Amino acid sequence: MKLVHGKQAEEESLEALIKRHVRVIPDFPRKGILFQDITTLLQNPGGFYRVIEGLMRSVEGTSFDVIAAIEARGFILGGALAHRLGTGFVPLRKAGKLPWRSFRQDYSLEYGTETLEVHVDGIDEGARVLVVDDLLATGGSMEAAFKLITLSGGKIAGAHFVIELAHLGGRERLARANPNDDISFGALYRIHAEE
Amino acid sequence: MKLVHGKQAEEESLEALIKRHVRVIPDFPRKGILFQDITTLLQNPGGFYRVIEGLMRSVEGTSFDVIAAIEARGFILGGALAHRLGTGFVPLRKAGKLPWRSFRQDYSLEYGTETLEVHVDGIDEGARVLVVDDLLATGGSMEAAFKLITLSGGKIAGAHFVIELAHLGGRERLARANPNDDISFGALYRIHAEE
Repeated sequence: MKLVHGKQAEEESLEALIKRHVRVIPDFPRKGILFQDITTLLQNPGGFYRVIEGLMRSVEGTSFDVIAAIEARGFILGGALAHRLGTGFVPLRKAGKLPWRSFRQDYSLEYGTETLEVHVDGIDEGARVLVVDDLLATGGSMEAAFKLITLSGGKIAGAHFVIELAHLGGRERLARANPNDDISFGALYRIHAEE
Repeated sequence: MKLVHGKQAEEESLEALIKRHVRVIPDFPRKGILFQDITTLLQNPGGFYRVIEGLMRSVEGTSFDVIAAIEARGFILGGALAHRLGTGFVPLRKAGKLPWRSFRQDYSLEYGTETLEVHVDGIDEGARVLVVDDLLATGGSMEAAFKLITLSGGKIAGAHFVIELAHLGGRERLARANPNDDISFGALYRIHAEE
């Protein structure tokens, strides 16, 4: 936004807005983790709206057929984005939540082990899948999502996030996991150290 | 849609579309439950889009400040609806998932006991809260959601669903739980017996 005669306030950047609304909570879910709580961002009408608009811009130029998201916070973002873009939505769920036959992928987290599952008919053969989530840390859950999509016969189109903890190397890990694929990555707010 | 010279196909009703795309799974999560699996509806681009459009029409005329949804399937619908309507979004989560101080409400399900939580600052004092979820069965989780919203100082504006198992009396239970409030209810597809 241009300043006109110095009277028009400059619109706050999306990064600044995210930083201002996210609540940082020390030692959750365990000691040593600085948890980035996005609920305070989502409950703000302008905050939530602008985050989804930002994700729409972030995925512009990426070709994909369907949006997948990781349970549970990813569902809030992925549902909104899929609706706005008119695509279908595929949930990647924690163990035992899906009612039908599923593919399963275990992964290690900073603080324990988790499992993601997807219905065996959730993703069409050859479908290009865009995955969204709230936060990229070490990339363990997103790497498991990539494996599930590949198991399902889908192709990974990209991975887009609200926040990226860039110093944890998740983006590099995901790129290494898919060395031959041209995958689009995006994050609306990149944190480069424990801020 | 009007039939013009008998050439234009009649648009499928939203109810028919939902019924066609939902997968009914016997004995999940336990014997005797006919589970209504909406993942097959959501992964269909037209299905997901029309469901959110339907929820928008369903909540027209209801005044509310914020949308809340019940973890986890409710997040997909609630996120999309909140974004389209430009409101904030508040997640009502399972026990132990929220990182900040929370209100807590236990409830009984057809198959066990569950807990819902909301951040103590998730809902502003006096805010009118619309709650969305995929399915209304006996109403236990939505009643817990109502109690959490009331504990938070919010007012319940309404409860809207994709599917209602009308023979289980959930709507009547929720109305009894809030006898003095004018609450809007809606379901896009009402099932009147174990179909």
